Amino acid sequence: MKTAYKPFLAALLLLVPLFSQAQPQAGAGQRLTPQVMARLFPPGVVSPEYNADGSVTFRCQAADAASVVLDTQMLPAAQPMVRGEGGVWSLTVTPGKPDIYPYCFIVDGKRIADPNNPFIFPNENFKNSLADVRGPEPSVQDIRDVPHGKVSYRFYHSKTCGIDRVMTVYTPAGYDPAGSERLPVLYLIHGMTDTYETWFKVGRVNNILDNLIADGLARRMIVVMPYANPYPEMMRQGLADRYDSMDTDRVTREILDDVKPFIESNYKVRTSARDRAVAGFSLGGRQALACGLGNPKEFQWVCAMAPAIFGEEYRTNFSDGTYAPVASLNKSFRLVWIGTGTSDFLIGASRSLDAYLTENGVKHTFYTPDGGHTWMNCRDYLTHIAQLLFK
Amino acid sequence: MKTAYKPFLAALLLLVPLFSQAQPQAGAGQRLTPQVMARLFPPGVVSPEYNADGSVTFRCQAADAASVVLDTQMLPAAQPMVRGEGGVWSLTVTPGKPDIYPYCFIVDGKRIADPNNPFIFPNENFKNSLADVRGPEPSVQDIRDVPHGKVSYRFYHSKTCGIDRVMTVYTPAGYDPAGSERLPVLYLIHGMTDTYETWFKVGRVNNILDNLIADGLARRMIVVMPYANPYPEMMRQGLADRYDSMDTDRVTREILDDVKPFIESNYKVRTSARDRAVAGFSLGGRQALACGLGNPKEFQWVCAMAPAIFGEEYRTNFSDGTYAPVASLNKSFRLVWIGTGTSDFLIGASRSLDAYLTENGVKHTFYTPDGGHTWMNCRDYLTHIAQLLFK
Repeated sequence: MKTAYKPFLAALLLLVPLFSQAQPQAGAGQRLTPQVMARLFPPGVVSPEYNADGSVTFRCQAADAASVVLDTQMLPAAQPMVRGEGGVWSLTVTPGKPDIYPYCFIVDGKRIADPNNPFIFPNENFKNSLADVRGPEPSVQDIRDVPHGKVSYRFYHSKTCGIDRVMTVYTPAGYDPAGSERLPVLYLIHGMTDTYETWFKVGRVNNILDNLIADGLARRMIVVMPYANPYPEMMRQGLADRYDSMDTDRVTREILDDVKPFIESNYKVRTSARDRAVAGFSLGGRQALACGLGNPKEFQWVCAMAPAIFGEEYRTNFSDGTYAPVASLNKSFRLVWIGTGTSDFLIGASRSLDAYLTENGVKHTFYTPDGGHTWMNCRDYLTHIAQLLFK
Repeated sequence: MKTAYKPFLAALLLLVPLFSQAQPQAGAGQRLTPQVMARLFPPGVVSPEYNADGSVTFRCQAADAASVVLDTQMLPAAQPMVRGEGGVWSLTVTPGKPDIYPYCFIVDGKRIADPNNPFIFPNENFKNSLADVRGPEPSVQDIRDVPHGKVSYRFYHSKTCGIDRVMTVYTPAGYDPAGSERLPVLYLIHGMTDTYETWFKVGRVNNILDNLIADGLARRMIVVMPYANPYPEMMRQGLADRYDSMDTDRVTREILDDVKPFIESNYKVRTSARDRAVAGFSLGGRQALACGLGNPKEFQWVCAMAPAIFGEEYRTNFSDGTYAPVASLNKSFRLVWIGTGTSDFLIGASRSLDAYLTENGVKHTFYTPDGGHTWMNCRDYLTHIAQLLFK
């Protein structure tokens, strides 16, 4: 696509909302013709368009708007878009490097996902779209010509929460429930307001694992992505009266009492702590620390990605039983891993925890790449830990 | 939740965008406290809220907007929302019956998905949210306490399109690739601008099949949901120069040459035409007719849901080889099924096709429930055909 808005394409796109969205405002039985559709429906636009020079053109149809702004993590700050023909606002930008970047349009002050991009960032409280900017060579997060695993949506009843729930599960290529191979399991928790889909759709767990496994860089493993926030459904069913984001204990119980038994009875997996890992990002990093460091008989691998820990609360956690005693960590855990970007607003708490572990002689990894509290960094963290786990 | 906006909840929701979306505008290493977060982030709202009396309250935070309108298929027409405290617009409405309804907010003329609802209608050209209004008793589309199948995202290389692609696949509870049971397969195609996720997320294929199978009303089957539109990725890779929505032939070739071989080599399925069905909605109904009626050696079950057929073009299709000759249908097909709502704008073409089949003595089913060109009707169509297939 060299141009945004070819007349031919526009004519075809007249069909778009008609066939799918809603009951159009036409009489039942009216004869379907392109003319009828042209009257009923406005054309769409192409956005994002990925240009050969590595730039990306974003477009937003908003004829009545006074202002449209592009807000994307590929730029240091939001940028105004330019109004063009037909009320289509556009902007072409070039990211510093190829990656998958969240973005939204701010139309007269209101943040909206790109209507013409089906790739949505799964989240409870905002609607961002994803721009998938690829480089000349495929990266670890791109689909490559290697054997592909799959991601399955699994439905189960949670005794801990009293509701029916869903999780996503990655199994590697060639996983055979009837074979002799038993796989280790990584339990991977999303960030606050993310969902059980975010590590799959934004984190690209399947591509990253497919590629690392194909290259011999990661062990074959199953990755389980639970939904750490049961509150919306619990509140709806009268089982909770508020959203308690700090209820880390429930997340641990859900994983140990519901998710783990489901996985271990439905998948061909290893069932010792040696073969179980827990990891998480942000609020999920806080939960991974509590779930992992608090249960050394269940997990020997614990990874916290930009964990949301407050001040020096870990001192209390190590002494009140929330975590195992700090002196026991070297004996209990094969990996204690913390990763936080140097410009992440949570880097201070991570540095403090790193220093505390060092002072106490705890073997651990502290990974501090560039970057902030982003899913670009999350994919990098996953790429790192996947090469360490179960080895 | 009895109120929209409790101070306590609001305080917790201050955390929301911080932990997940983006690099907040705070210095790296700044100590994380609730006060820091309160300064940086505004609170969220609860939307939709499902009330005990069957009504639904929608809320949209838009302090600067002059007008916010609720557009939902649960109402005959869009309704203005009312501005309340803190710039939160709200409206409480009661649908005629419990169902899953698409909706969006129109903020100063711009259609947006509900920022606080994670349930999105997967689509290429609009962003609607889904309100899941349940009745006192679970319906066929609700999750019930029955054995649950799963939905898997499968990644493959399409020779027909020259690109890597994805499909979703439903397998019923207890499906065992190493067992002796071989299952029949339904290939199920979405509507125009929908995606390979729409039948799963909006069509609720898994719940409907789980429930019908548990009740002994449907045979156990695998449901394959391909992505009928390869053009965005093909254009990006220079393999196509425009989106050709009328390229029905490519959809058929993709299903027969790529999707079917993938399924038949990766799943324990039956491989005769007797055990293969093809169905689709809207543009997908048009594609299902071409794929199915055009390939009697591949499919003996063909279901068109509100198919997008233009005028009397089927007369040509039956004579030029697009479809098998009309006189051969009774011998070749076990089910020819057309379903279209009586207020669907495509009912005229369906009635015309029904009359033509009747005139020509073709055994077929013509199902005409109330309702329009909606996914409420789609779930009803699927519920009907699932009870007919492979029997």
